[in-house]
Amino acid sequence: MKQKIENSPGRIRFRPHFKTHQSAQIGQWFRDSGITSIAVSSVDMASYFAQNGWDDITIAVLVNPLEIESINQLAKTGFLDLNLLVDSRDIVALLNKELKHPVKLWIKIDTGYHRTGITWDQKDDVLDIAKEIKRSPRLHFKGLLTHAGHSYNAASDKEIKEIYDDTVSKLISVRKYLEENGFSNVEISIGDTPTCSIVNEFYGIDEVRCGNFVFYDVMQLFLGTCKEEDIAAAVACPVIARYPQRNEIVIYGGAVHLSKDSITGKNNQKIFGLVALPGKDNQEWGPIINDTYVSTLTQEHGIIKTTNEFIQEVNVGDILMILPVHSCLAANLLRARGVGF
Amino acid sequence: MKQKIENSPGRIRFRPHFKTHQSAQIGQWFRDSGITSIAVSSVDMASYFAQNGWDDITIAVLVNPLEIESINQLAKTGFLDLNLLVDSRDIVALLNKELKHPVKLWIKIDTGYHRTGITWDQKDDVLDIAKEIKRSPRLHFKGLLTHAGHSYNAASDKEIKEIYDDTVSKLISVRKYLEENGFSNVEISIGDTPTCSIVNEFYGIDEVRCGNFVFYDVMQLFLGTCKEEDIAAAVACPVIARYPQRNEIVIYGGAVHLSKDSITGKNNQKIFGLVALPGKDNQEWGPIINDTYVSTLTQEHGIIKTTNEFIQEVNVGDILMILPVHSCLAANLLRARGVGF
Repeated sequence: MKQKIENSPGRIRFRPHFKTHQSAQIGQWFRDSGITSIAVSSVDMASYFAQNGWDDITIAVLVNPLEIESINQLAKTGFLDLNLLVDSRDIVALLNKELKHPVKLWIKIDTGYHRTGITWDQKDDVLDIAKEIKRSPRLHFKGLLTHAGHSYNAASDKEIKEIYDDTVSKLISVRKYLEENGFSNVEISIGDTPTCSIVNEFYGIDEVRCGNFVFYDVMQLFLGTCKEEDIAAAVACPVIARYPQRNEIVIYGGAVHLSKDSITGKNNQKIFGLVALPGKDNQEWGPIINDTYVSTLTQEHGIIKTTNEFIQEVNVGDILMILPVHSCLAANLLRARGVGF
Repeated sequence: MKQKIENSPGRIRFRPHFKTHQSAQIGQWFRDSGITSIAVSSVDMASYFAQNGWDDITIAVLVNPLEIESINQLAKTGFLDLNLLVDSRDIVALLNKELKHPVKLWIKIDTGYHRTGITWDQKDDVLDIAKEIKRSPRLHFKGLLTHAGHSYNAASDKEIKEIYDDTVSKLISVRKYLEENGFSNVEISIGDTPTCSIVNEFYGIDEVRCGNFVFYDVMQLFLGTCKEEDIAAAVACPVIARYPQRNEIVIYGGAVHLSKDSITGKNNQKIFGLVALPGKDNQEWGPIINDTYVSTLTQEHGIIKTTNEFIQEVNVGDILMILPVHSCLAANLLRARGVGF
């Protein structure tokens, strides 16, 4: 298996994470491009996309025991390949006892991000869980899954590539241990946008689950994992005030539209978004305006710090396009206002 | 007017800001307590509460010229006292030209927060706007309004009181200038929860518009403007993993539930929420758990740093109650999932 994958990058399954857009329409664009497998981040989101015809879904969050009944409802449809994440034997035992319909299980491995998962070198624990899964007639052991989210802290492309190499080699060593103990066809699934954007050749893995890349955003731009022209989401915000004496523009556009995720700029300033001028019908936008950024966000207000020159071009009532720092969170907030589920 | 208000604190109008809860049901509780005037932060929110029987509403964000038509729709109902904010003569001229129905206007004054408003000492600019309002038969000049949001940066009760004193004296001096120039019955409206929580006697003003106090939150607790038992909002989050080796608990509860607003703790750590155990039916909660806090939030995950002792009490599948750092943003996120408009 390992060797086959290493020599056949074309066979890697692309399972985009739909939590970024949460939209059936954008999902359809993926389907039109030949995608058949997706990841989501809640049982509700899985139901939404199952209703929209998706039949191979990974709920890429550890199983919440309080949702067993909802999982049963979803699994009983029969047509759905439902993939779940576990990192404890107790939860596998619970699923074995409570689930009435077949599901596929991935063991979540922590390769260095330290959010969830069994630490990769606790191989006997992984083996225990795999054995527990094997005992059940309804649980099918699919493989090892990780989210190398520490790639977001990388300082360079080189570091991101090193995180990929490190992640994959750790997962391969766990798989090897399982193979030595009688398991076969153990798949490896990874998924973080920085890694998936920078790495050119995906050796050693079976599945990629990145999500943010569908829109990208200012965070990815600063990380160097996308170019300005790759950013595909902006929030159209009306200018409600301008203060030339302090070179600040105020927009109706705040934490409830953009989220409070921020990055730190070169001069150690907090940045909540970058700014562009709208194109036709506010559906397009021009280049990012120099020395101009959203410096403060309160519930509905955004303050833009800008230059003497740019403020002369802007009037109250104009629309500015704000490129969000974190498009997943901005899309989630704006989804609630009518887009998606 | 000034003297009357200074001597009659009982006559101050309480106009709670409903952006915190955005819920008709919670609004009803205010009505049951005798409240008849409210503030909101968007034209949509004003429509929602007007439909729920509120007839004196301030849209406490500067007029967005792109929403003139929606404002006309709202104003034409006839029964509504619609209060709008302006800080430029151009916008007043636009309203005079475009509005078909009477509205009340407040001039937004900047007393030190530097978000929106005319700087308080630019008194001739304020006078110009007041005169422009007076020219119109449909625009009624109501008074001076500020949000002293810099109170959130105060280090002590004393500083918060100083901000109140400073804010009110600046507004009174602007009012005096208007009175000297022929204006009368100029009201003064303030509204930020820290000030409104700490000040005992509201001299010199006509209206208070605070909002957050309805729930309070961890930010207010750290500011010293509320006590632990005043916090009336918590998010019930299931435990999906526990890692005793690093004293961390992972909940299903992330930036899309709590928002990414954070505060800095005593040890310079970022805090995204505090933790309590649920009471009956998860409708109540116990005391805040010592040395335990939400240290990281990603889209749907929260990591709780805790103690050796507390982690022993917690199991996967338990519910933990997370007291949000900023209840307005948490309520906005959860509203989108079925509560409120």
